[in-house]
Amino acid sequence: MSTFTELRVSDIRFPTSRDLDGSDAMNPDPDYSAAYVELVTSDGDAGYGLVFTIGRGNDVQSAAISALSGHLIGRDVEDTLADLGALSAQLIGDSQLRWLGPEKGVMHMAIGAVVNAAWDLRARREGKPLWLLLAELTPEQIVDLVDFRYLSDALTRQEALEILRGAEPGRAERIAALRAGGIRAYTTSPGWLGYDDEKLVRLLREARAEGFEMVKLKVGADVEDDARRMRIAREEMGDGYPIAMDANQRWDVADAITWLQRMAPYQPAWIEEPTSPDDVLGHAAIRRAVAPLPVATGEQMQSRIIAKQLLQAEAVDVLQLDATRVGGVNENIAILLLAAKFGVPVCPHAGGVGLCELVQHYAFFDAAAVAGDHPQRFIEYVDHLHEHFEDPVIIDEGSYRAPDAPGSSARMHPESMDRHLFPGGEIWVEQDHVAIA
Amino acid sequence: MSTFTELRVSDIRFPTSRDLDGSDAMNPDPDYSAAYVELVTSDGDAGYGLVFTIGRGNDVQSAAISALSGHLIGRDVEDTLADLGALSAQLIGDSQLRWLGPEKGVMHMAIGAVVNAAWDLRARREGKPLWLLLAELTPEQIVDLVDFRYLSDALTRQEALEILRGAEPGRAERIAALRAGGIRAYTTSPGWLGYDDEKLVRLLREARAEGFEMVKLKVGADVEDDARRMRIAREEMGDGYPIAMDANQRWDVADAITWLQRMAPYQPAWIEEPTSPDDVLGHAAIRRAVAPLPVATGEQMQSRIIAKQLLQAEAVDVLQLDATRVGGVNENIAILLLAAKFGVPVCPHAGGVGLCELVQHYAFFDAAAVAGDHPQRFIEYVDHLHEHFEDPVIIDEGSYRAPDAPGSSARMHPESMDRHLFPGGEIWVEQDHVAIA
Repeated sequence: MSTFTELRVSDIRFPTSRDLDGSDAMNPDPDYSAAYVELVTSDGDAGYGLVFTIGRGNDVQSAAISALSGHLIGRDVEDTLADLGALSAQLIGDSQLRWLGPEKGVMHMAIGAVVNAAWDLRARREGKPLWLLLAELTPEQIVDLVDFRYLSDALTRQEALEILRGAEPGRAERIAALRAGGIRAYTTSPGWLGYDDEKLVRLLREARAEGFEMVKLKVGADVEDDARRMRIAREEMGDGYPIAMDANQRWDVADAITWLQRMAPYQPAWIEEPTSPDDVLGHAAIRRAVAPLPVATGEQMQSRIIAKQLLQAEAVDVLQLDATRVGGVNENIAILLLAAKFGVPVCPHAGGVGLCELVQHYAFFDAAAVAGDHPQRFIEYVDHLHEHFEDPVIIDEGSYRAPDAPGSSARMHPESMDRHLFPGGEIWVEQDHVAIA
Repeated sequence: MSTFTELRVSDIRFPTSRDLDGSDAMNPDPDYSAAYVELVTSDGDAGYGLVFTIGRGNDVQSAAISALSGHLIGRDVEDTLADLGALSAQLIGDSQLRWLGPEKGVMHMAIGAVVNAAWDLRARREGKPLWLLLAELTPEQIVDLVDFRYLSDALTRQEALEILRGAEPGRAERIAALRAGGIRAYTTSPGWLGYDDEKLVRLLREARAEGFEMVKLKVGADVEDDARRMRIAREEMGDGYPIAMDANQRWDVADAITWLQRMAPYQPAWIEEPTSPDDVLGHAAIRRAVAPLPVATGEQMQSRIIAKQLLQAEAVDVLQLDATRVGGVNENIAILLLAAKFGVPVCPHAGGVGLCELVQHYAFFDAAAVAGDHPQRFIEYVDHLHEHFEDPVIIDEGSYRAPDAPGSSARMHPESMDRHLFPGGEIWVEQDHVAIA
């Protein structure tokens, strides 16, 4: 019998604000960071997970993860991994910690990282990539992972079972096709607000040359700048090439509508996060007003309860789950099932630290065993920080290749961790020297 | 010139789980706690604030507060206190910390505690109780405190100004009347789930004898128990006496409707938190189904953005703001203005550690300068832990007496802090001895 012996948490930060990589209308100078989890067992194994943050507060996020260690240490590994629905329910159900959310923010993301680390370990032990492990579970095993509390007015356990059973025919063929062809990526690399027009054009050309069939531009800081950048991008990429826009929550409802009317000539593929991620009714009002321009959101969607309402209110055309915002794999399965019920495509959010590595597993699982094929399926891609991961994503001709290595692709290289540990790692000690000099 | 020199944070916990005080359907064994803030100035002054939690995780909440100290230390005290709208905006706008919410959960509650401590200091310096300080500001000064981002589809700055100007006539008379008569309290003390029927009856009698004109019972663990306890309470208090029920988020939409139909014979005054605090559409569906039974919620409402939607969706009959859940005084002013706009009464949530002390200021301010008089105005009251505060609430014949001491009533006795400091305080060291023995 093996037990969990340590929940090791590391505050890892990358000084990305130096180059304005990742700059958008709400996040002018992020230092991409990870509160990184190693869930260690008595037989020397470990599972890996993380919460992506953008700098300050990564220590708070780390403290929240550490607060969960009492639920893990000493616990039987086999029993735990055999019933990860129970682990998720226990962590979310800790009545004292629940007060700090409930099911939202720092404490909920902490739960997600720990749940994900347990899934990572299970997938490593079973020798499968996470997406395939999930896709090969039975419909009953999958629904057992889901907490249907607060969902049953939109999705019952029985309805979820029917969705999954409906996807069983053809599943093996879809898995084979996914392994052969992957899933299309779109790239946000050209579109950061901090880049000048010349860099924008250069990166757009590179994106097309690399085979990407969609790109995304950040907008929302200045309407004239946005119109110019969208015009440049449309001219560069030609009619019909999908160019999405991302406002990162910049607007109120009326602002969004006015701004988006100004953008209509450039035929955006979608408008992402036009307003607060918590404003379900606001998204619905914007969507009604700017139709047929599609509305996308979800990267900061706090839980399946907001996902449910976005779908009920017909507030979104595209749902963008994130790997480290909600309570982990289990809650993201609930979100995939909700989206499938409402017929809304899921195009995961990525970028940051390790998000491309993590979210690809949801898209492949969704395509294999939940929603199945659909023409709008894309995974976001940003060419950034992948070198720090042991199993980095592989992009082939603008598509994510199906992950093949066992696990959830969350493991970081030990040398990368050492170097970027905050505040003592080499990169931060150097930074301080620069600042002082 | 004085500056802020320290943001001192203390992890204070009361071992309330020993007596099942505070037990409800979702929180069976809370240890009422406070992440307690002392915002210290260079001339030896201090402002006080706190976040109420229920035990585990109070350390995480404390860490989140400490993460804000860079925004305060070295800052000019006079300038800061003269523009607390700017302080609030700066803390909420920290783009890196914002990622940890945004505007929700641990990080947002931390901001609230710091903003509240600054308000406490300002009120102490001006020699006024917080409610009166706020009530005596001009409408322009009040709206300058509010962040209208994400609100303007429901409430503009101009509309807020008109609400406040509309309340100016008669304000002096209302303040005089509030000082003379106070605001009615309802008490939850009889209704905790952990109490047996005999204790319930005894406490109901005491409540009536003490002059309370409304009581509240916790429900949601077992429908037969709830029916029995509501029947007992109705028989004891008689027809027409308001008896509210609080389900503490226990139900899905369909469960809530079924359960509440079973309770109809006992004429509950309202049903509070029938489902997730994040489920705006769920509350609206329940409200439509159980009408005319009023629906109340808000103690775990994460922000003004959820408040806005609860009102837009006609999901609530009573809005129950909390003093330490949102981003502090400024955001609660926004919530009061939203409720006034929609004509929904605000009956603040209290209990816990210091919540009665803190929330009373919102009710008195609302009655004096925002919504004015209305017959449904109550403040929750629980007779619990007040002895630890320097300016405890005073209940006279079932009503809160208007607070008179300068400040926001948040200051705890130093001896109470020492004794309940976690884990080193006397009460916890004793607890450990008991546990070991």
